[in-house]
Amino acid sequence: MSLRDEARELDAMDPLAGKRAEFDLDPDVSYLDGNSLGAPPRAVAERLTEVVGKQWAGRLIRSWDEGWWAAPERIGDRVAPLVGAAPGQVVVGDSTTVNLFKALVAAVRLNPGRPEILLDDGTFPTDGYIADSAARLTGHVVRRVPVHEMADVASSRTAVALVNHVDYVTGVLHDLPGVTAALRSAGALTVWDLCHSVGAVPVHLDACEVDFAVGCTYKFLNGGPGSPAFLYVARKWLDSFDQPLTGWAGHADPFAMTAGYAGGSGIRRARAGTPDILSMLALDAALDVWLDVTVDQVRAKGLALGDFFLRCLDAGAPGVRVVTPRDHRRGNQISVAWPEAAAARTVMSALTDRGVIGDFRPPDVLRFGLAGLYVRYADVFRAAEELRALSET
Amino acid sequence: MSLRDEARELDAMDPLAGKRAEFDLDPDVSYLDGNSLGAPPRAVAERLTEVVGKQWAGRLIRSWDEGWWAAPERIGDRVAPLVGAAPGQVVVGDSTTVNLFKALVAAVRLNPGRPEILLDDGTFPTDGYIADSAARLTGHVVRRVPVHEMADVASSRTAVALVNHVDYVTGVLHDLPGVTAALRSAGALTVWDLCHSVGAVPVHLDACEVDFAVGCTYKFLNGGPGSPAFLYVARKWLDSFDQPLTGWAGHADPFAMTAGYAGGSGIRRARAGTPDILSMLALDAALDVWLDVTVDQVRAKGLALGDFFLRCLDAGAPGVRVVTPRDHRRGNQISVAWPEAAAARTVMSALTDRGVIGDFRPPDVLRFGLAGLYVRYADVFRAAEELRALSET
Repeated sequence: MSLRDEARELDAMDPLAGKRAEFDLDPDVSYLDGNSLGAPPRAVAERLTEVVGKQWAGRLIRSWDEGWWAAPERIGDRVAPLVGAAPGQVVVGDSTTVNLFKALVAAVRLNPGRPEILLDDGTFPTDGYIADSAARLTGHVVRRVPVHEMADVASSRTAVALVNHVDYVTGVLHDLPGVTAALRSAGALTVWDLCHSVGAVPVHLDACEVDFAVGCTYKFLNGGPGSPAFLYVARKWLDSFDQPLTGWAGHADPFAMTAGYAGGSGIRRARAGTPDILSMLALDAALDVWLDVTVDQVRAKGLALGDFFLRCLDAGAPGVRVVTPRDHRRGNQISVAWPEAAAARTVMSALTDRGVIGDFRPPDVLRFGLAGLYVRYADVFRAAEELRALSET
Repeated sequence: MSLRDEARELDAMDPLAGKRAEFDLDPDVSYLDGNSLGAPPRAVAERLTEVVGKQWAGRLIRSWDEGWWAAPERIGDRVAPLVGAAPGQVVVGDSTTVNLFKALVAAVRLNPGRPEILLDDGTFPTDGYIADSAARLTGHVVRRVPVHEMADVASSRTAVALVNHVDYVTGVLHDLPGVTAALRSAGALTVWDLCHSVGAVPVHLDACEVDFAVGCTYKFLNGGPGSPAFLYVARKWLDSFDQPLTGWAGHADPFAMTAGYAGGSGIRRARAGTPDILSMLALDAALDVWLDVTVDQVRAKGLALGDFFLRCLDAGAPGVRVVTPRDHRRGNQISVAWPEAAAARTVMSALTDRGVIGDFRPPDVLRFGLAGLYVRYADVFRAAEELRALSET
């Protein structure tokens, strides 16, 4: 059977095939950039119309008491099962950057007398920038190490380690359970960045005894461009979580408007300022696509899509070098290095013009995200075909 | 002429009367809480439909290059003229709380060797909480003083003063030009919180040589619940603005994805994480109501509404005590203290049930916002009438 026919057959048998109809996507587009910006669930537009027209216009200020104020915790509890967290430990709001700052400063305060912050040396940039800033303010030193060396490097000097679950360039899936356990043995806390795994790879924060985690909701959770991020604080730290963005929304009794800050009980104290309701309720609607599907199902499809894509690439695009692990120690993307680094960005533009949308990351990497809720086997077949055609021009 | 007739005549002559049609407001509701949550401009719903359906769904990831990435600065430049700022000094994003943190930490770094942060002792709570947090991280002491004493208290020990332009409870308008000048004489920097003045009271940040300012956009700018806040950095500080939330969006070359942070040129370095596009473009649409109206016009109407409301209160609701200045040293609200403090919250609920919506602030204050773009003289007449009725029950 040809790979083209095989793609058709795989799509026909795909138990998730029907989910694509829940997204507003041009059928002619092969959208392989859900690792950067998830596609729009159809429910979002409808919800926004309701939030603006009925809640904001209709109820005006009263809507704050009628669901808006509690939305960050309520929606956090919808994200929680996707990352293996029991209720009450996840809150939605602010950006990943801002939540990283909260988590890192709180972590070093909880682990005093340890001068070092370990940082995944392949981290997405913002994590490193924020680690440097937090270290500067709290008198710590940031030490950049490869994730696979963290277990050896962690010591009684380590306050906290900040680790990306999935490497955003290569797609490598790091060993969250193992690294967390090794750090814990050294008495270090962990902050995991789940941006590239949430909604694509099963995560078991509670079971792995992770201390803190952050993640964005605009990739595999499809919350919309720049939608609110989330922050996980393990139950055991909730009472002592001492974060620096002590906004009124995290106060124990915000509407008492007292002069001194007193952090609220539970995850509320991870909140900062007034929550951004339009974006937050757009995310709420986007999360409805998870009502009848599990992360395990999406993971299985993502791996199958990747395996098939790799076969297509091997068969048809021999010039590109796959930088993502071929075994299943990968997240939910396949990254390939283009033979001529200087041309890689142009190649992605050409692919996009041909209706195959991925993205480019320096210096020479083309990334293809495999969002199982809407990517078809035919899409990855087509991507490999177009890559082959471009490599022959 | 009765006050009722006078209200009718004032509305008939009001040059801004036509603006109300640009808002999605029930004609039977007297909405006097625009100082807490502005009413929805009709343009917002339409814009969101376009952003979700055409930009996100239609262009997908490409939209980041087609306007999304630059939106924080572009929309900042739309807010700028409303606060007397030349272009390039205002950026939109994050919450007021988060922007206060950026501004305060940057300010004390710019003014080293001065151990004290002065804080407006009537501040909205979040400002004080953030001042305390910033002080803790940077080794400063927060000193709470009444705004009218700041000029006397400022000294060579003062790094920065954080002052609210309008007192959120009483509605007192503080002397921004005078306080700023006095602080500058003492070598102190200023951070002004414009939440209750932007879009209601003329502000001249450049002319007054204010150093930094923050403000929200969900009150008199009608951006929507929790819409992105703004941050002003005076041109002279742009190159040295050294803020702690060093996210990738503030980087000089964010998509180069380099390991070390280098703040971008201009106001870009005040950005932190990925901007929240749905809310930001909702705000963009909301700002269209300013295309044919000036803050001076809105200010004139807000004062006239207040003057008329005070006359109505004096004539009909003698039990309440007006706590907002009767002269024009006030912002854009009238606050009254209810004779029985314990009943004040209930009174506001009853007013709301009768279609007059203001809000309550502890311990006994009822606030009535006077958003000139949609509040009618008939609304304030009605509010006074209902207050009278309630005071007689």
